[in-house]
Amino acid sequence: MQKIERSEVMRLRNVKNAKEILESSSYYIKNPTFYKGSFSSLFSNENPIHLEIGTGKGQFLIEMALKNPDINFIGMEKYESVLVRAVQKLSLKEIPNLKFISSDAQDISNIFDHEIDTLYLNFSDPWPKVRHQKRRLTHSSFLKLYDNIFSFDKKIIQKTDNIQLFSFSLEQLSQNGYILERVSLDLHKEDIVNVMTEYEEKFTNDGYKINYLKARKR
Amino acid sequence: MQKIERSEVMRLRNVKNAKEILESSSYYIKNPTFYKGSFSSLFSNENPIHLEIGTGKGQFLIEMALKNPDINFIGMEKYESVLVRAVQKLSLKEIPNLKFISSDAQDISNIFDHEIDTLYLNFSDPWPKVRHQKRRLTHSSFLKLYDNIFSFDKKIIQKTDNIQLFSFSLEQLSQNGYILERVSLDLHKEDIVNVMTEYEEKFTNDGYKINYLKARKR
Repeated sequence: MQKIERSEVMRLRNVKNAKEILESSSYYIKNPTFYKGSFSSLFSNENPIHLEIGTGKGQFLIEMALKNPDINFIGMEKYESVLVRAVQKLSLKEIPNLKFISSDAQDISNIFDHEIDTLYLNFSDPWPKVRHQKRRLTHSSFLKLYDNIFSFDKKIIQKTDNIQLFSFSLEQLSQNGYILERVSLDLHKEDIVNVMTEYEEKFTNDGYKINYLKARKR
Repeated sequence: MQKIERSEVMRLRNVKNAKEILESSSYYIKNPTFYKGSFSSLFSNENPIHLEIGTGKGQFLIEMALKNPDINFIGMEKYESVLVRAVQKLSLKEIPNLKFISSDAQDISNIFDHEIDTLYLNFSDPWPKVRHQKRRLTHSSFLKLYDNIFSFDKKIIQKTDNIQLFSFSLEQLSQNGYILERVSLDLHKEDIVNVMTEYEEKFTNDGYKINYLKARKR
């Protein structure tokens, strides 16, 4: 049986209340599979859709949506009790190009059908043990799932402080047909437009360097 | 005019004497272009030939040659006054699978013709300024030169402490058809057989992490 860690117990508390708050928010997509192949209709435009898996409390995606009104953003987060913090922040705001989904990455190809332009993987769980590497979001089995969600070129942007996850991602992406358009081992020293996530702020304050990659498969 | 740095001045001292010592050594190939396409004849066998560009004082290549008698090793070093230190170390040893060349990387395709199995780039000059990036040994213009030296699959193994050079190499290799078979951002923590270079020992003792990549192009 898998050990449930303290942080996870805390997340799982109050789930019932979280569900109610989410479902009362216009930012939340209750039945995402219903929109499979037609997510554009939710935004009433044909702008490109960018997806973040593991959107957490939404800091990155909210700022991205505000800064890029011509792009539609969808944030996917497994834990409703975390995602609820994102919609709570937005209760008095109106951002038409932003939506959230509560779902697991494993289900991604049941939700999207060739309609995503760019995928963000920010500070994903590194799953450090080798026997858990299939759970890393850049494992080739996930990359194969993602093949079904992209509309045209497959574009993945990853940020992480974890050097094992990062080197694993470089290998997996390269070995699965992706070209590395940009790589940095110290993102904040580069001339790359960057919006910080919650974790990124914390790790940066703790002195860690942020690794960044932008990969594309045609 | 290019500034000549102190270290370079020191290297250039005693060049005349260095040349004499090199030319009297059986490890030294005086006229490498003469062997273009037939370097195997120098070793009197058909074993694969591995090449190191920037072999310095030879520590890496000497140990590699001793540990791998079924592989032939050639070390290329621009500065004769540095390379002389390698052949001096070997004056009382007999290592039949090891040779040295004094030449510039720019001339590589005048020297080798589809006869190299693996290329090592260890702690190459990072040329940190953007206007100098064409001089980095993984710049696409160098990768194009290397295309002419490899016998079959193109295999490059790089080690460096410099994260800017390393991320540049990942981009250039990926964008020029190489697949990243292995990447590590902390080589000494990995289960990878490793022979240390002089620089690597120094940088490691100073607390720097060593970046490693193994790339292949078919």
